Amino acid sequence: MVIVLKQEYEKKQLDNLLNWLERQNLKTSLVKGEQSTILGLIGDTVSVDIDMIKAIDIVESVKRIQEPYKSANRKFHPTDTIIDVSGIKIGGDSLTIIAGPCSVESREQICDIANKVNKSGAEILRGGAFKPRTSPYAFQGLRAEGIEFLSEAKKQTKMPIISEIMNQNHLDLFEDVDIIQVGARNMQNFELLRELGTIDKPILLKRGLANTIEELLMSAEYIMASGNKNVILCERGIRTFETYTRNTLDLSAIPLLKELTHLPILVDPSHATGMSKLVKPMSLAAVAAGADGLILEVHNDPPNALCDGAQSITSEAFEDLVNSINKILPALGKPPLPLRHCGIHCK
Amino acid sequence: MVIVLKQEYEKKQLDNLLNWLERQNLKTSLVKGEQSTILGLIGDTVSVDIDMIKAIDIVESVKRIQEPYKSANRKFHPTDTIIDVSGIKIGGDSLTIIAGPCSVESREQICDIANKVNKSGAEILRGGAFKPRTSPYAFQGLRAEGIEFLSEAKKQTKMPIISEIMNQNHLDLFEDVDIIQVGARNMQNFELLRELGTIDKPILLKRGLANTIEELLMSAEYIMASGNKNVILCERGIRTFETYTRNTLDLSAIPLLKELTHLPILVDPSHATGMSKLVKPMSLAAVAAGADGLILEVHNDPPNALCDGAQSITSEAFEDLVNSINKILPALGKPPLPLRHCGIHCK
Amino acid sequence: MVIVLKQEYEKKQLDNLLNWLERQNLKTSLVKGEQSTILGLIGDTVSVDIDMIKAIDIVESVKRIQEPYKSANRKFHPTDTIIDVSGIKIGGDSLTIIAGPCSVESREQICDIANKVNKSGAEILRGGAFKPRTSPYAFQGLRAEGIEFLSEAKKQTKMPIISEIMNQNHLDLFEDVDIIQVGARNMQNFELLRELGTIDKPILLKRGLANTIEELLMSAEYIMASGNKNVILCERGIRTFETYTRNTLDLSAIPLLKELTHLPILVDPSHATGMSKLVKPMSLAAVAAGADGLILEVHNDPPNALCDGAQSITSEAFEDLVNSINKILPALGKPPLPLRHCGIHCK
Amino acid sequence: MVIVLKQEYEKKQLDNLLNWLERQNLKTSLVKGEQSTILGLIGDTVSVDIDMIKAIDIVESVKRIQEPYKSANRKFHPTDTIIDVSGIKIGGDSLTIIAGPCSVESREQICDIANKVNKSGAEILRGGAFKPRTSPYAFQGLRAEGIEFLSEAKKQTKMPIISEIMNQNHLDLFEDVDIIQVGARNMQNFELLRELGTIDKPILLKRGLANTIEELLMSAEYIMASGNKNVILCERGIRTFETYTRNTLDLSAIPLLKELTHLPILVDPSHATGMSKLVKPMSLAAVAAGADGLILEVHNDPPNALCDGAQSITSEAFEDLVNSINKILPALGKPPLPLRHCGIHCK
Repeated sequence: MVIVLKQEYEKKQLDNLLNWLERQNLKTSLVKGEQSTILGLIGDTVSVDIDMIKAIDIVESVKRIQEPYKSANRKFHPTDTIIDVSGIKIGGDSLTIIAGPCSVESREQICDIANKVNKSGAEILRGGAFKPRTSPYAFQGLRAEGIEFLSEAKKQTKMPIISEIMNQNHLDLFEDVDIIQVGARNMQNFELLRELGTIDKPILLKRGLANTIEELLMSAEYIMASGNKNVILCERGIRTFETYTRNTLDLSAIPLLKELTHLPILVDPSHATGMSKLVKPMSLAAVAAGADGLILEVHNDPPNALCDGAQSITSEAFEDLVNSINKILPALGKPPLPLRHCGIHCK
Repeated sequence: MVIVLKQEYEKKQLDNLLNWLERQNLKTSLVKGEQSTILGLIGDTVSVDIDMIKAIDIVESVKRIQEPYKSANRKFHPTDTIIDVSGIKIGGDSLTIIAGPCSVESREQICDIANKVNKSGAEILRGGAFKPRTSPYAFQGLRAEGIEFLSEAKKQTKMPIISEIMNQNHLDLFEDVDIIQVGARNMQNFELLRELGTIDKPILLKRGLANTIEELLMSAEYIMASGNKNVILCERGIRTFETYTRNTLDLSAIPLLKELTHLPILVDPSHATGMSKLVKPMSLAAVAAGADGLILEVHNDPPNALCDGAQSITSEAFEDLVNSINKILPALGKPPLPLRHCGIHCK
Repeated sequence: MVIVLKQEYEKKQLDNLLNWLERQNLKTSLVKGEQSTILGLIGDTVSVDIDMIKAIDIVESVKRIQEPYKSANRKFHPTDTIIDVSGIKIGGDSLTIIAGPCSVESREQICDIANKVNKSGAEILRGGAFKPRTSPYAFQGLRAEGIEFLSEAKKQTKMPIISEIMNQNHLDLFEDVDIIQVGARNMQNFELLRELGTIDKPILLKRGLANTIEELLMSAEYIMASGNKNVILCERGIRTFETYTRNTLDLSAIPLLKELTHLPILVDPSHATGMSKLVKPMSLAAVAAGADGLILEVHNDPPNALCDGAQSITSEAFEDLVNSINKILPALGKPPLPLRHCGIHCK
Repeated sequence: MVIVLKQEYEKKQLDNLLNWLERQNLKTSLVKGEQSTILGLIGDTVSVDIDMIKAIDIVESVKRIQEPYKSANRKFHPTDTIIDVSGIKIGGDSLTIIAGPCSVESREQICDIANKVNKSGAEILRGGAFKPRTSPYAFQGLRAEGIEFLSEAKKQTKMPIISEIMNQNHLDLFEDVDIIQVGARNMQNFELLRELGTIDKPILLKRGLANTIEELLMSAEYIMASGNKNVILCERGIRTFETYTRNTLDLSAIPLLKELTHLPILVDPSHATGMSKLVKPMSLAAVAAGADGLILEVHNDPPNALCDGAQSITSEAFEDLVNSINKILPALGKPPLPLRHCGIHCK
């Protein structure tokens, strides 16, 4: 941490500051120039409150040198974290595909989609039961019943399941859920994060619409600091001035996160773009950029397909996408997508 | 709502769409051109799911004409909502000042500040007990004990109190709190909003860092649709590319919200700018733009003021600010700030 | 400037860096910690290319301490710059109102508006002759003829005139123009800025839609470094995710710029919001925030007013606005708006 | 175009509006509802000024249905535009690599890099002679001399060359330059665009930092409407709140632009990210997303490599990148990168 002092200050004020910093177990080094005086802080500054220092009279500005996260920091944990979900590995060399409908609508719908995506290469089944909707008048998901249907599909296909939690009081309902998702709008719901830190189920943490990469890692740190090290990060687009796409998918976050952290990173191109026709090119781009996996919305094209989001692709498009991914994986030095469940569990 | 159809479609597809819209009780009107066909929808489209329509094969785009909120909409409730907090009115003609420390630190600290700001013109006391912090290693507030100290200050000064809730399970602790604040990071914590809709205490809803004015109103609608009509909106800065200030205070939101909704609108210049020296000019600007009130951070300058945020002003600066506001209020046709509690409760 | 070194480096690499810095006349001071090594740079770092240093192998990051601008910096020029335009002062204690139509359309139109706004308190006349339009098919302004009509209005009313330049080759046409405006889209047209630095006419420099406050000052520095010290800054809204208003007017830029620079700062609420109904509240807010003046679009309501922007106000609304401003000016310690030209030149 | 009328209006006002629209050769269709009245406009609305309509008294809002660009619109020109630069094709099935240093520094430097990148697969040589720099104190490029050195390298290697223009008065100097680049900061320098529309050299138009995809296409339209149809688009990152990368590379713009326009689209990962270590993953991602080519900064690692940007890669890294691209191209159905010049012109 570097503290820039104001041009004029009293010796006593500086001494007070130096004493206070010493009490925080920080070594200091003063560099005096004509136009500014710099105070270098050496030691563990992770828990130093930068706002407190900024508030001190003689301080002009404070600049952090070290990352404010530890458990999620690759500097302290150089090896990739690989998360094992019933034998399926997320992170490391492989690519993991999670697919399923936006919302769980019925037993038949979710089982039908599960079978289809599993056959094409998806290893984990996604499905929304509790839906965060901007409008109170929009469909809020089947809630508890949705989780039930999802569990049913899990039994039938042996695919692990992932679903979004919106309320820590619902945790009991998620017993059968293999990965708990924290949505973009709850990325800084610190009470929820802390609660999820007390269990040991894998948590998929989505980047908030207006959150920086550092804030994403700080939210991962919340979960990890509370004890749960099984965190999977997910880039899903950020809010910018561009209105053509729903959000702007920030793929440069992938190689950056790979450097800053040891946690696996997935990409959700369906929500990021909000347009089904962009799902394929952005999926290929995410894989090429080094993502550890994709989470995709696939719908079950019934004759009157009125209830699926504009961002969902058909199961045929999903199969075509997986084929294209399988073609570029060897060029990236990654093994092809496993079709291991299929032929056994699909009916 | 206006639906733009793709250039080519089959008559049967259009008939399906028209039938479906009819079943939603919507009247339609088709306008055919050479390059595009437009379908106008007449009726109550508030609960029509725009994403569903976008997903239909023959639809190119959908544009909303009507606002998607009702209870918060001034069109349906032309008169200003005035919220009564123990006799103090928020909204209407008057200007209400809420002031207090960032965090409640001790019984003495909160009572001391309460007395000071009350004497200078603040009518309601703010104080953080549960603090949303980006880092799990930063001070998280005194939590339950903080609410207790705040209640103590309320008893001493007779000022109503406001504090932030982060978890619906804490609701019992807020019994004595007069206004419950929902912070920017929880603006789209829909589970929390719904829960707050079931009580009748006033809710101060802060705009999220990356949320539009329409989304702010939709979150107000969540609370109101669940039964609680006592919602106060608060602009506190949005996230932009500018890094000099912590956020960019969007004051144009004030006159816009005044037109779109009947709910009162406050401004929080302390959090928006993150710099104490900007609090005064931005407070004056907010008042001039038509805000119904301000919520301000004031700290209790002890000799070693190391624990107050860079955004807090001293109680002297607060007094000076209130004096300046009192000078411009008559020019804006508003009554001066009342000093009604003072002389009675201050010790 | 502070250079953070990578954790591991060879002594030879560090020596190379230190020698190179010394040759740039910079004194250095090394602070070694367990997790990072900091190199403080003391001296005039304004002309040090931060990108060059970032590219050095052993450098992890570079942080600037000192502002990269000099001529525009209040630290080196503590007194307010006051710009004299034919006796009208911009900057200092007074408030200056510039008003006029979006585009100059005809001799009659511009003279008519000039007379009206001058009578109500505007001291300088604005009018677009060269119009930057997003579409090549939109009206591009009357160009040279527009400047001619504007000069005519200047003769009649004795009001100084301001108009936007888009091409340095047009400079001859602007001989009669008192203030040359650089529009938001040309804020970083460095060739144009440099050219405008070679004359001594006042330049009104508008902040670019996506430019930071520091970049605005760097563009002012371009003009000043080439010799022209008569620069007036103008905040006119930045591009954010909010789509309700055309741009987000960043009023906190006003007090910030007042601290960082000695140059006068105007606000353009018409272009920032794009909505005529927001012009009055945002004008009052800008004045309350400390702006040195306003630049406003006023249209000449003919019976079939089809050709004026949605952001222009009528001359009646302008008069009402000036009256409201005059009411709050004394409360801000500023003199009332002068009506000095009127009664003499208005016909 | 759809015009939404205010709830209350006089018949005469509506008649005026309808008559005016008719005079613009637009057919109208009125749809009356209880809460709003919609007016559909059928016909060629490209040249209708949306701001004019918004300003009409009885209009609440206006929504465009049709794209406001024509020459650049794929709807009117379904076939891909392929631009031929001395036999090298940009657009269509192939991938084109443009590489070279940030700035031309000397005859030796540019020829050395040219030979190296050509050998590795680059077909076109880039090099900055006129440099847009935020600071007037930073190196502004060798200017005319830089173009001379670049031409020299062209003669030696037979590679076509590309360089950035910042001032229409420099056009004569660019006679030997094969592709003229318009930088991000000049994307809306409409005077420059119009001038470049009068020649027939290919123009590489970079997306502005805060410009939408539609605005990029409107700027292409400026050039094309003036007569020059040889426009190449380039995505180079947009400005967002994220500060880790210099800009946020918006790769979803690639498939979107492919749909909206027939013009070729390149990606510049060097400037977008500002970090050399992100160039490879983002290049692969751009290719996977469907880009027609890449424009890359490569530096000439001299022993004291102090003058190259943090975003440049070494020629070794460039070779490694081309190898990786060549591996994924077949999987994307594209031919491998040609090494056709090499062995003939390289020395």
